[in-house]
Amino acid sequence: MNEIKVFVPATVSNVSCGFDIMGFPVSAPGDVMVFRRTEEPVVTITEVRGAEGIPLDARRNVAGVVTRAMLEERGMPFGVEIALEKGIRPGSGIGSSGASAAGAAWAVNQLLGEAYGDEQLVEFAMLGEQSISGALHADNVAPALMGGFILISRYDPLTLVRLHYPADLWCAVFHPFVEIKTKDAREILRKELSLREAVKQWGNVAGLVAGLQREDYTLIARSMEDVVAEPVRSLLIPGYEEIKQNALEAGALGCSISGSGPAVFALCRGEENARQVREAMEQAYRHRQVEWRSYASPIAAEGVKILS
Amino acid sequence: MNEIKVFVPATVSNVSCGFDIMGFPVSAPGDVMVFRRTEEPVVTITEVRGAEGIPLDARRNVAGVVTRAMLEERGMPFGVEIALEKGIRPGSGIGSSGASAAGAAWAVNQLLGEAYGDEQLVEFAMLGEQSISGALHADNVAPALMGGFILISRYDPLTLVRLHYPADLWCAVFHPFVEIKTKDAREILRKELSLREAVKQWGNVAGLVAGLQREDYTLIARSMEDVVAEPVRSLLIPGYEEIKQNALEAGALGCSISGSGPAVFALCRGEENARQVREAMEQAYRHRQVEWRSYASPIAAEGVKILS
Repeated sequence: MNEIKVFVPATVSNVSCGFDIMGFPVSAPGDVMVFRRTEEPVVTITEVRGAEGIPLDARRNVAGVVTRAMLEERGMPFGVEIALEKGIRPGSGIGSSGASAAGAAWAVNQLLGEAYGDEQLVEFAMLGEQSISGALHADNVAPALMGGFILISRYDPLTLVRLHYPADLWCAVFHPFVEIKTKDAREILRKELSLREAVKQWGNVAGLVAGLQREDYTLIARSMEDVVAEPVRSLLIPGYEEIKQNALEAGALGCSISGSGPAVFALCRGEENARQVREAMEQAYRHRQVEWRSYASPIAAEGVKILS
Repeated sequence: MNEIKVFVPATVSNVSCGFDIMGFPVSAPGDVMVFRRTEEPVVTITEVRGAEGIPLDARRNVAGVVTRAMLEERGMPFGVEIALEKGIRPGSGIGSSGASAAGAAWAVNQLLGEAYGDEQLVEFAMLGEQSISGALHADNVAPALMGGFILISRYDPLTLVRLHYPADLWCAVFHPFVEIKTKDAREILRKELSLREAVKQWGNVAGLVAGLQREDYTLIARSMEDVVAEPVRSLLIPGYEEIKQNALEAGALGCSISGSGPAVFALCRGEENARQVREAMEQAYRHRQVEWRSYASPIAAEGVKILS
């Protein structure tokens, strides 16, 4: 294989109480990435469309970092030219850098004749995340690569669990165009939690996992509470309380911040409810002078996929 | 019904990473409790056998506190005499006070014609726990009352989840006769956790719940790590590292402290392995001048049961 074009989905990570350990892809938006094998053993970014400020220097570009790491581990048998078309806005909270990293890991693995398995690809993709946020986290790259509702239960050894979830679990995403850098969103988090708060969080995490696996919507809804990130990060999102209130009143199971925000997501029972919830979230911005995009999507069972 | 005699099982709570939110009963040891209805509207403890230092004053006795609370809520329609035969040693870490509280809630509910449901019984039983430890916790009383592997995912509103678990999941318990008061064991815990430690803990909690529900022994084993209580509480248990090492070498899935200790439990795959693990744990005390008891038991599907 000399050239591959892939679609990489956006991902909702954290998923309320599941801070740093859970995520899932949505069917839209997503990035389109083209990888072409070259004889000269160099990684170059030839083009970035659809977003500004993304570096063309492969050593500073997330897809470039991942591609270089993978080729270097194999002794640079060839080079790769990468063209990116960003459908996921950087700084959105729905895994823009994660998509670049996951797409690169998945596509370069194809160019290498599928040399690596899922876990290794997640490890490579995490290097891309680390290059931009300073933290090794897999809650966007693992679901973008693997599809489905993914639990990263441990990092050492990396333990990826494909959780069962109800077939009609949908998601509404509302993305106001307010910029929040992942790094800044990490810095405003408290570094310490009281034992009481921590117990509350892992009780909810346990309830959410059990609820998904048992398809118990009442338990899922009751478990979607985050005492860690939402209380502080929501302060960075204008109108957050109204967006959330509207989503819940429209029947969402729960609503919280996607990743480090500003995108807000709501889990919903079925397509019709997801569309109603999406519209209800939009209402909160009707009179605001801020652009936004919104989406309604099932939990995508598939991650990265080949376009040609 | 004028008199009821019940068996109340010991319970393993916390279950490694599941601090304060999980527990299950074992088939032995357990307490035997007799409740007799009296005309005079007074609660009295007529006898406590098998343990020293348990108050006969119903206002200070755990079973008495629960019984009084339940009868007072109904306007004290009658009184109750309680006789206790403790098979579970107080201060063991396998739910001695929890058994007294759960047994009282369950039996008095029978004398009241089953006026209350599971959740309400757990709420009453928690009052008994609170009277002795100062904390409202349900991780012993809920499994003792309900049987099975119980998750208390929230306290407000109280959310009890009967987790699925593999049919051949067994447990070995080793109880060295070293006294640790629940209250003291709570006080040595750190009151704050770093965010990094907390994420590790709830990743493991999520892995354990997913592993139980999927019957995935590898995931169960990998998730049985506790960064919160075990590192400090294990210091109060002489030879803890050797007990645990022996259990793991004998093939246990995981090993940690039951409740606040000093009892140590190990989860095992099947009866034969549980017996081997139990023997391996005993070896750690062969040359110590400390008495102990040990048990091998399935996760008991049943909680309190009627003897006559």
